Amino acid sequence: MQDVDSYLDRESGRFVAELCDLLKIPSVSGDSAFRSQTRNAAEFVRNNLQHAGVDAELVETPGHPIVLGRWQKLADAPTVLIYGHYDVQPPDPLDKWITPPFEPTERDGYIYARGATDDKGQMFTHIKSVEAWLKTKGELPLNVIYVIEGEEEVGSGNLDNFLETYRNELKCDVAVISDTSQYSPELPAITYGLRGILAAEIRLHGPSQDLHSGIFGGSIANPATALARLIAALHDDKGRVQIPGFYDDVLPLSDAERKQFADLPFDESAFLKSLGTSATFGESDFTTLERRWARPTCEINGMASGYTGEGPKTIVPSTAMVKITCRLVPDQNHEALTAALKTFLEKRLPPGITMEFESQHGAPAFVFDPNSPYLEAAKRAITAAFGTPPVLIREGGSIPVVSTFRQILGVDTLLLGWGQNTDNLHSPNERFRLVDFQRGIRASAYLWHELAALK
Amino acid sequence: MQDVDSYLDRESGRFVAELCDLLKIPSVSGDSAFRSQTRNAAEFVRNNLQHAGVDAELVETPGHPIVLGRWQKLADAPTVLIYGHYDVQPPDPLDKWITPPFEPTERDGYIYARGATDDKGQMFTHIKSVEAWLKTKGELPLNVIYVIEGEEEVGSGNLDNFLETYRNELKCDVAVISDTSQYSPELPAITYGLRGILAAEIRLHGPSQDLHSGIFGGSIANPATALARLIAALHDDKGRVQIPGFYDDVLPLSDAERKQFADLPFDESAFLKSLGTSATFGESDFTTLERRWARPTCEINGMASGYTGEGPKTIVPSTAMVKITCRLVPDQNHEALTAALKTFLEKRLPPGITMEFESQHGAPAFVFDPNSPYLEAAKRAITAAFGTPPVLIREGGSIPVVSTFRQILGVDTLLLGWGQNTDNLHSPNERFRLVDFQRGIRASAYLWHELAALK
Repeated sequence: MQDVDSYLDRESGRFVAELCDLLKIPSVSGDSAFRSQTRNAAEFVRNNLQHAGVDAELVETPGHPIVLGRWQKLADAPTVLIYGHYDVQPPDPLDKWITPPFEPTERDGYIYARGATDDKGQMFTHIKSVEAWLKTKGELPLNVIYVIEGEEEVGSGNLDNFLETYRNELKCDVAVISDTSQYSPELPAITYGLRGILAAEIRLHGPSQDLHSGIFGGSIANPATALARLIAALHDDKGRVQIPGFYDDVLPLSDAERKQFADLPFDESAFLKSLGTSATFGESDFTTLERRWARPTCEINGMASGYTGEGPKTIVPSTAMVKITCRLVPDQNHEALTAALKTFLEKRLPPGITMEFESQHGAPAFVFDPNSPYLEAAKRAITAAFGTPPVLIREGGSIPVVSTFRQILGVDTLLLGWGQNTDNLHSPNERFRLVDFQRGIRASAYLWHELAALK
Repeated sequence: MQDVDSYLDRESGRFVAELCDLLKIPSVSGDSAFRSQTRNAAEFVRNNLQHAGVDAELVETPGHPIVLGRWQKLADAPTVLIYGHYDVQPPDPLDKWITPPFEPTERDGYIYARGATDDKGQMFTHIKSVEAWLKTKGELPLNVIYVIEGEEEVGSGNLDNFLETYRNELKCDVAVISDTSQYSPELPAITYGLRGILAAEIRLHGPSQDLHSGIFGGSIANPATALARLIAALHDDKGRVQIPGFYDDVLPLSDAERKQFADLPFDESAFLKSLGTSATFGESDFTTLERRWARPTCEINGMASGYTGEGPKTIVPSTAMVKITCRLVPDQNHEALTAALKTFLEKRLPPGITMEFESQHGAPAFVFDPNSPYLEAAKRAITAAFGTPPVLIREGGSIPVVSTFRQILGVDTLLLGWGQNTDNLHSPNERFRLVDFQRGIRASAYLWHELAALK
């Protein structure tokens, strides 16, 4: 691998410059104002793959296009499917960014930009590692397929149909995704479990327009108050979700897993300090790591009603809105729980208030087989690139495509996170550590070797 | 009065045109972006008073200026203080206006614009009536003082200091305000009671920035959820306020008042239809009119947290905000209840959440002596101008200056509303009926005659 190693060292500056070019493109998939720029990011990824020596094209969908890349020249070698996404979360609140979200800036060994770690930077490592193989050796040790989509941040609404349509072309032995985190800055990790998700937006309607709260207040139900009462009903004082049946299908954590979590280094006061808060909060019978990785939740992501500008405005608002996501664990069913959530809320509406319930997306949770040879191969590649063996962890986030790959393509997914929990993903000042970018590329290059050796 | 009557008929078109010029000025006192335009409205009112023949000037304050006008040439006649305001509520939501809020438009006998009825149109009637006297007779039958302020919609923060400073110059026998409504389109009213108010804005702070709800959800308190739980705790299922001591000082309605309210024509299904909702809601032992006029409330005017744009965004928000106003009745104390609200909320904060509590403004409720000769004089003037005797009603809104006039100047206030409850004040498509504008001017002109005859 010495030629590959040397290439990676020599080209590392250019890799960062290319990543910055990609980060400059505001590919906010959830906001239709950014539609053409989201497409620009897809074209950038396609071109970059082609430059590396991979056949690549855009596959159109009713939403944003999917970049499909392939290098499949070895009849007897295994095939790995590399998944990633070129779309990003909205950048707001804009005023909290130290440097603008789409002007990538290097500071203190990090590159700051929306999408730096989620997922442009991490996804890019698997393009650069393949480039290194092809430019130095002229070939890879195994076959690769890239599926880089543009709708991960809005629920991957067109991905399933693509996977079904291209099911034969996408035949592979294992999938690889880098869209998670290391356990800590000096402790790499392989993620063997993820939480599922259900997302809904609820809009309450009261009077047909905002009313003067002096003239009408006290005589009709206030949609903001009604919404607050619905939200308040979702949890008890201890943070336990009150939707009937919510915990019925939750698989209890095994004693071995609880011990494994407990053995990980975890400094709760440092954790709180990094979040800028003073206390944890949640189900009383579980540790903080258990609550984050292996317990279901129901979180408010946003809400709005009435007048929110400067100064007072004495109205009874006409409407109120809330965005809710639940994180799910095995074996909770996201469709049944979406229906249960809707029923739970409907039953609590006061007179004169009507509800619109929009189910946005959902996916089941996922746990990987910890004894898989693919996982052992990934451990060896990471150990070699990072100089430290990875720990096995779960994560609280959701990568719905992992379940889809199992269901449609019949393969498991290696979740190899090069980022950090402190990289501010989905938040202002998102960042990716340059050393993690470079080590990620190297681990990826080694992984192709380790996976090829399995057959 | 025939010369005055003829003048009013002849000049009515010009009066509407001048009102439209005033309505074109976006004098939104609560938004600092409109600061210079708010001043423009003050200058317009001053100039219009001067044109009518009244001495007028702007009195500067730390906020928006107060227009002080005076015609005081009769040593033996009574003096009436006319109060109004040239500032308006914010116009949002802008997309709900049929024609833009600051482009006054005549449709179906109404003039549509922000401030049409609250309070530019109503205030203007008392300038035009005085103009009619001075242009036809060369003098008024009594002395008048105008106090037209620019901060009514943001709590009149600089008015008390002005009234204290000008206490001697403002000596008067009675005050007149037209900033309320008639009982119905064909039934004028004199308002003898108003609710008081307390206003507060509460901001909750959780983590120092928005966090990924997958990675962190379930382990720390969510400020949006915490805020919803605080709001939900403010009422029981029946809409009764739960702040300790909230109802302790409420004076019960007399049997005579309950009967008087019950005798007024009130069509509940028409009321609901006009609001675009299907049911009333509130304290079960009171009628709809009692709830609106004579019972205290606690209303949410606006709330915001996290992401409220298009599409999902999976975060735990960093902050959450709510604007609350309580409407108060005699003898509730707004200062004590503001403190009780703060304590009530503080006690309910979950671990890791801190609260900022901003008390914005407050005023006690007000009830007028129904046997006053001033009130009898107003009844005669309205009966002559409207062709129908007015009913005595209360209103649910707050005009804090009424209490201030009693306290600082020692006078009672005649609340003579020319508007309608259906004029969309504080809402999109605010309007003022042209016939009410013209009848209001006439009633005002007659009022000067009736009040002068009392001495």
